[in-house]
Amino acid sequence: MARTGRRRGGADTRGDILSAARAAFAENGYQATTIRAVAAAAGVDPALVHHYFGDKESLFAAVVELPFPPSSVAERIMDGGIEAAGENAVRLFLSVWETPASRDAIEAMLRGAFTTEHGADTLREFFETVLVSQVAPHIPHPDADLRTTLVASHLVGVAMLRYIIGFEALRRATPDDLVNLIAPRIQAYLTGEPSG
Amino acid sequence: MARTGRRRGGADTRGDILSAARAAFAENGYQATTIRAVAAAAGVDPALVHHYFGDKESLFAAVVELPFPPSSVAERIMDGGIEAAGENAVRLFLSVWETPASRDAIEAMLRGAFTTEHGADTLREFFETVLVSQVAPHIPHPDADLRTTLVASHLVGVAMLRYIIGFEALRRATPDDLVNLIAPRIQAYLTGEPSG
Repeated sequence: MARTGRRRGGADTRGDILSAARAAFAENGYQATTIRAVAAAAGVDPALVHHYFGDKESLFAAVVELPFPPSSVAERIMDGGIEAAGENAVRLFLSVWETPASRDAIEAMLRGAFTTEHGADTLREFFETVLVSQVAPHIPHPDADLRTTLVASHLVGVAMLRYIIGFEALRRATPDDLVNLIAPRIQAYLTGEPSG
Repeated sequence: MARTGRRRGGADTRGDILSAARAAFAENGYQATTIRAVAAAAGVDPALVHHYFGDKESLFAAVVELPFPPSSVAERIMDGGIEAAGENAVRLFLSVWETPASRDAIEAMLRGAFTTEHGADTLREFFETVLVSQVAPHIPHPDADLRTTLVASHLVGVAMLRYIIGFEALRRATPDDLVNLIAPRIQAYLTGEPSG
């Protein structure tokens, strides 16, 4: 958050640029954010942003890194077995949104997906490459891809209404309230019958 | 869709303006849409848009009218009793999104909620005034407001990933596929146990 006015490349310059980019994408979305504005917010020359991150797309890709390796998502969700995966998925998702830095990053990704074709491609590719391919093989149903996507749709909707639009009942609920109500529905997608 | 080049107020002028506004809000979101651009797309003078609809907020309010009176939502969802409400809610929601005109309108409302504070207020007020107050009294749980909002979060997430961002598995699914999988989870929010 501190604006140091630093102009030279230093130990924290890369981190400062990332923080400024994270805030800019979260506040203004993908399309309206410029390398120039990120550089100004970080107190560096735009050339330094290009030096560390390349173009805006690459800067965005660096910003949306999760607080854990995306490749570990399935392992984290499945580490108590498939029968605990519903609760683990909800807790993991909420933990990302309840942590300010990662919330900004994932909100930026969601805004980008909503407002630009590139952003939509980014989110779709991230989701299909990282999440569906990791999680779906654990789901004992032929429509595992659809079920995984329905899980994502519910969690994305919760994030939108709780953290972005701010619906009252969702804003007031604690993470535990949400886990108690949502996890059984997520679990039903993973292991439940179509009709149950 | 037809651009008639009409300049005078005529029988369809109001409808032409509404169609142009619906398309503009859906394509560009609330903030980037101007009365001037809507007037140009409809082939009328901006003064005529102001004459029929007042300011941009009022034009937006006219555009987001659902294909049925919002006050009839609970009646439509509950007309088979609370035990059929999950399926009715999913079918009603999908019917709005599967109909191009109302899909554009509701997509515009969602984009507005996502990109502007005014749009977020509009959606929140619509949801809390119209939906929660109509639906929650039918839900036999003390946390009926939260449950109603969780239903909304799931349906909004489905709309985002199926119709706006276009996740492959959701795009390919038929409305009946979706009803079969989603309705039991919506029903569980309405009448199910927290743990079941």
